[in-house]
Amino acid sequence: MNQRPIGIFDSGLGGITVLRSLAEKFPHESFVYLGDIARLPYGNKSPETIRLYGLQIMRWLKTQDVKAMIIACNSASSVFLGEDEFEGIPLFNVIEPGAQAVIDSQAKSVAVLGTSATIRSKAYSQTLHKLDPEIKVQEISCPLFVPLVEEGETKGVIARAVFDKYLSELAKKTPEAVILGCTHYPMLKSALQAYLGNSTRLLESGEVLGGILAPHCREKGSRQIRLCITDLTDHFERLAREFLQGQAIDSLEKVVL
Amino acid sequence: MNQRPIGIFDSGLGGITVLRSLAEKFPHESFVYLGDIARLPYGNKSPETIRLYGLQIMRWLKTQDVKAMIIACNSASSVFLGEDEFEGIPLFNVIEPGAQAVIDSQAKSVAVLGTSATIRSKAYSQTLHKLDPEIKVQEISCPLFVPLVEEGETKGVIARAVFDKYLSELAKKTPEAVILGCTHYPMLKSALQAYLGNSTRLLESGEVLGGILAPHCREKGSRQIRLCITDLTDHFERLAREFLQGQAIDSLEKVVL
Repeated sequence: MNQRPIGIFDSGLGGITVLRSLAEKFPHESFVYLGDIARLPYGNKSPETIRLYGLQIMRWLKTQDVKAMIIACNSASSVFLGEDEFEGIPLFNVIEPGAQAVIDSQAKSVAVLGTSATIRSKAYSQTLHKLDPEIKVQEISCPLFVPLVEEGETKGVIARAVFDKYLSELAKKTPEAVILGCTHYPMLKSALQAYLGNSTRLLESGEVLGGILAPHCREKGSRQIRLCITDLTDHFERLAREFLQGQAIDSLEKVVL
Repeated sequence: MNQRPIGIFDSGLGGITVLRSLAEKFPHESFVYLGDIARLPYGNKSPETIRLYGLQIMRWLKTQDVKAMIIACNSASSVFLGEDEFEGIPLFNVIEPGAQAVIDSQAKSVAVLGTSATIRSKAYSQTLHKLDPEIKVQEISCPLFVPLVEEGETKGVIARAVFDKYLSELAKKTPEAVILGCTHYPMLKSALQAYLGNSTRLLESGEVLGGILAPHCREKGSRQIRLCITDLTDHFERLAREFLQGQAIDSLEKVVL
């Protein structure tokens, strides 16, 4: 059973930031990544549509004989929150580990940045308040962040103007902690750190998610990483390279769901 | 036959700018509009995926008994260019009328602004050169324009920074004519006119398309406008209102393709 790969999925390539972090932490583990590029982004779709697409992907991952599944997309995680298996296969999301990272940081207040779908769901504030009823949570929808990352505008004048739109009030208050509540956002991390100042801690789900997955991961043996996508687009290659940052993949496949 | 509605489709709401223009010109004509909001945008998908989705929509429009179909999306038009019927139903696109508008304007040089898919296809330059082998055509991909319109950022600091990214060289040359080669872009028209200057003519497919469709349209009788969408999202209502600008619709339906 342990030889089987771990399945990871996202609307597109953002979730590769999660794949990269896990592949670094578990060098003997195999992964199958599914990026639903044909239908991205998920962050401005309704919960019903996101759920429909998520279930199609999970059914496909099951046919790939995965031993566990990770929803590496906050918008999709918000729709499947509290569900810990899919047809007998353990299911993980990125919102609960992101919330746990805040608790671990001992921050007493936090701002959550996310897509429209994630923020509207209030998944972060509900999860955080279960872990710490006293914590102060502010949720900020940043729908232009994903297009910025997709177009490589991760710093400079346009990024700055978009930060001003969503975060100028937040920056004035020098927040204690900020959750990057979308798997695209780590690509904006250094620009956001510069904008918010060095005393603000930028948190992601990666570290905690790695701890949660450790019991499922192999400690020896060779591994395989398969990158599967639902559309082969022009700038896919550039983006994949940026997101992977040197992490090797063994195969690239186009799949039709 | 004349009583049957005209079908119009787009990846989302951008094509409503085409619906609005036709509804104003033909006050007795009925329309069925299909916006594939669940899978928008099309402008960064591959031709294969855009074609697959377009065919699904045309099959659906056929079940709605339309007498003609309009591909009110430049990215989809580029994939179906040169095809003038779908299973016996007359099929129109927005690229050929857009190119004709340039010829009608007597401009000798033109810049085409469009999505990645439209620009990569070279559909405009090919169509323009068939009509006038001497015309000078520059094609500029503007992938952040659609997110700007979707988020209501049609003027101001962010729009200005995005215009600088794509159009600063063009603006220096004071172009004779510019095609708004995406049905979202008319929402940016006044900001683009201010950016490029009043001596540049901004052209759309609307006027010519209206002339082409005239023989199919009724001159009397009551009409019905149905707005059909594949997902019901948060900001759908705001966007629909902006795009329609007062044009009344008779029904709003969610359809699953």
